[in-house]
Amino acid sequence: MDKEVKSQLRGIVGENWFLDSKNELYTYSYDATPLYQAMPDAVVLPSSVEEVAAVLKVANEYKIPITSRGSGSNLCGGTVPVDGGIVLVTTRLNQLKEIDQENLTATFGPGLITADLHKAVEAQGLFYPPDPGSMRISTMGGNVAECAGGMRGLKYGVTKDYIMGLQAALPNGEVLRVGGKNAKDVAGYDITKLLVGSEGTLAVVTEITAKLLPLPSAKQTLVAYYNDLTDAARTVQRVIAQKIIPATMEFLDQATMVVVEDFAKIGLPLDMQGMLIIEQDGTPLQVESDVERIAQICRAEGAVEVRTAQTAEEGATLMAARRAALSALARMKPTTILEDATVPRARLAEMVEQVNVIAKKHSVHICTFGHAGDGNLHPTCMTDERDQEEIHRVEQAFEEIFHAAIKLGGTITGEHGVGMAKAGYLELKVGQNGIEIMKRIKEAFDPNGIMNPGKIFAKSSRRRVVVSSHACGHEHSHN
Amino acid sequence: MDKEVKSQLRGIVGENWFLDSKNELYTYSYDATPLYQAMPDAVVLPSSVEEVAAVLKVANEYKIPITSRGSGSNLCGGTVPVDGGIVLVTTRLNQLKEIDQENLTATFGPGLITADLHKAVEAQGLFYPPDPGSMRISTMGGNVAECAGGMRGLKYGVTKDYIMGLQAALPNGEVLRVGGKNAKDVAGYDITKLLVGSEGTLAVVTEITAKLLPLPSAKQTLVAYYNDLTDAARTVQRVIAQKIIPATMEFLDQATMVVVEDFAKIGLPLDMQGMLIIEQDGTPLQVESDVERIAQICRAEGAVEVRTAQTAEEGATLMAARRAALSALARMKPTTILEDATVPRARLAEMVEQVNVIAKKHSVHICTFGHAGDGNLHPTCMTDERDQEEIHRVEQAFEEIFHAAIKLGGTITGEHGVGMAKAGYLELKVGQNGIEIMKRIKEAFDPNGIMNPGKIFAKSSRRRVVVSSHACGHEHSHN
Repeated sequence: MDKEVKSQLRGIVGENWFLDSKNELYTYSYDATPLYQAMPDAVVLPSSVEEVAAVLKVANEYKIPITSRGSGSNLCGGTVPVDGGIVLVTTRLNQLKEIDQENLTATFGPGLITADLHKAVEAQGLFYPPDPGSMRISTMGGNVAECAGGMRGLKYGVTKDYIMGLQAALPNGEVLRVGGKNAKDVAGYDITKLLVGSEGTLAVVTEITAKLLPLPSAKQTLVAYYNDLTDAARTVQRVIAQKIIPATMEFLDQATMVVVEDFAKIGLPLDMQGMLIIEQDGTPLQVESDVERIAQICRAEGAVEVRTAQTAEEGATLMAARRAALSALARMKPTTILEDATVPRARLAEMVEQVNVIAKKHSVHICTFGHAGDGNLHPTCMTDERDQEEIHRVEQAFEEIFHAAIKLGGTITGEHGVGMAKAGYLELKVGQNGIEIMKRIKEAFDPNGIMNPGKIFAKSSRRRVVVSSHACGHEHSHN
Repeated sequence: MDKEVKSQLRGIVGENWFLDSKNELYTYSYDATPLYQAMPDAVVLPSSVEEVAAVLKVANEYKIPITSRGSGSNLCGGTVPVDGGIVLVTTRLNQLKEIDQENLTATFGPGLITADLHKAVEAQGLFYPPDPGSMRISTMGGNVAECAGGMRGLKYGVTKDYIMGLQAALPNGEVLRVGGKNAKDVAGYDITKLLVGSEGTLAVVTEITAKLLPLPSAKQTLVAYYNDLTDAARTVQRVIAQKIIPATMEFLDQATMVVVEDFAKIGLPLDMQGMLIIEQDGTPLQVESDVERIAQICRAEGAVEVRTAQTAEEGATLMAARRAALSALARMKPTTILEDATVPRARLAEMVEQVNVIAKKHSVHICTFGHAGDGNLHPTCMTDERDQEEIHRVEQAFEEIFHAAIKLGGTITGEHGVGMAKAGYLELKVGQNGIEIMKRIKEAFDPNGIMNPGKIFAKSSRRRVVVSSHACGHEHSHN
């Protein structure tokens, strides 16, 4: 990057917020997706939409790649500056500007931490449901870029379902305002929803207006243990077919239970093949009635033991154990390969079965846990990246898992995003036509191709899987 | 249109489903938006996605405008073939292909009538919430194209919130499949949500997969009458600020009440300035508790009388009266000009006040009713299109209403779409940047500009309002 550009960037964000020492560049060369790393040429931390727009304008003029990021907690290599250029960090744009009690909205900068938004709105009796595993460190801008999911997706949907309005800087340096606080708005194409999940490849989001709900007044948690995994999967289907929509239905198989128990020491019965953690929220009476019916269904479908948490603390402990699953698994082997293949929820039992068959076929060790109610599984392989032969088998296994998910009407990524990690597989889901139209949309926003290049669209047809090493650390647990 | 093209189209859809007699062309020259009319050159009624794709391919090759439509019940001139060409009617693609009890989805052709979908899913204890006023005649393809709203938007959202997957034919004759039955899916840009509300300007939807909910087991309706309109508007805000989200909160001002009473004879107290019709659904206990609290809030905010429907029939009668509002108004004068300016719900009182001030200023007669809970008002002017001077004042008044809505953080159209009627105003909401990016997206899908030309984007800067004449008839009531 030439001196003139650097000097322009310095002029925009100020000397303190322009970084280009080797150490500083290294810090922004990776995200929570190990094995993907690339050095940027410069890092900027703008403090306003005007600064963001001005940086983009310079990048566009000189055709310099620009990768925007918040905390970098994504699991798809989505914020690795693979072609170098500028990393634009949005963490200084972290103001919570407004909680609007009458319109039930919150407006904030993209750098706001997800859990801080939760805390602030809950203090006012309001509720922002999406709760990705990384919520204590992830930024809302990152959640918007990746359309983050979480455990409450079954009843409450994902980030997209809550984003009502955005301000975003376009590659040409212009600032766009789309959507707003209107419950209904059909003025032209829905650019808001298009930007959610666009992984920083179209624009840089500079302000977010999110829909809030009233905070449910009660919640209750139950666990059910199973001798047979398909009984657990079928329970999930039966609960929903009985027209009960719990807030959360999480699934852990035996292997995951073993490592979670080792990590969290909460007394899980380790002779069981799998368990469900189910949470319902709502009014106290409704919650009680639903949880009772759910417990009945669990038993009817073959649960060996069903236990309703007696206190809020006990419920929280169970949910925390589930949240610790990836961290716990990551301790077991040097490399943890984690996926998020997703199927329509009625195909969950088949998918769990196929994962096991595929793992056996390739002699790899795959634990499965995840958001069973959404059909959003996290088959997770514990391996060692230094063993190239094993890694090759793991890659083959995951490729088969993706194909199996697609065959069941599923998708290659439920909530992690495509990024670099899934780019080679996108065609499986959307076809060549789908990729073609997406590329044309990309060009419509970003004719020079400066916005997060190398993401979503594969440069080559090489398939890759997310490989997350042990060094990834617990704070990165995203699931 | 030359003979060769006609012969190709005949070959694709069959002799019986190709229309080009003058009478037949006339039938497809207008929609529910009077004063907009234009003759197509040919009409085709394809029976399969392959036929739709083949028609598009021919249109694209010869650069012939193509306007797709279902029942044509839209109120924005969205399906008037303003540049001639082919009208593609999707009504034969009306199969309800599947109701999936376990995934809670329905899959159907775009020609399926909205109310038929309601009936079919409700018979299985399921619920498709969007309920546009035209639901007895509108097609689901039209609902998707316009992102139809309705009375249940407050609690349940709009069409977009329920469309999970689409099959669509692109202008180049290729067929795209996007989304599906997955509760979570982040494989690339969200083309599904982009197509919803794209008004037939990007692609022709050929199959729809919609999300369903469990059908609420109970509902209850209450009415509250007010001496002061702002008390009614404030009640809406207070209910929501008290964290109660009713299924429906509809508002009628006195003038609307008078004509509705004349039409429906249900004993409305015509000395009142306005009324709210509020419906809550859910479990019986929850509904009872919410309705009681809502009644208290109505009284506290100045309602003169609050009455809870004693039976389901009484509730249904009240809702039917509300649904008849446009039909009732349309009887009063030769021309009914209806708008759907929308504001964040907390600004409702201000908006109602401004509508009255603007009406007085221009000496025009505007009644206001609509979806108060969504801030989605339908200020409706009864006038006479033959009186050009008055029509001019009406247009000025509506232009001021749009500006007022925008100033309050609102939008030019909450649920009717842009079409031809609002194209001149789109810039007010999305700015020149927004229009520019939308046009580029349009080009990405439709480089030859054949898809529903003249819609969404203004050819000139002339502002126009929807002018619906008496001849429009009751079946078109869309609000």
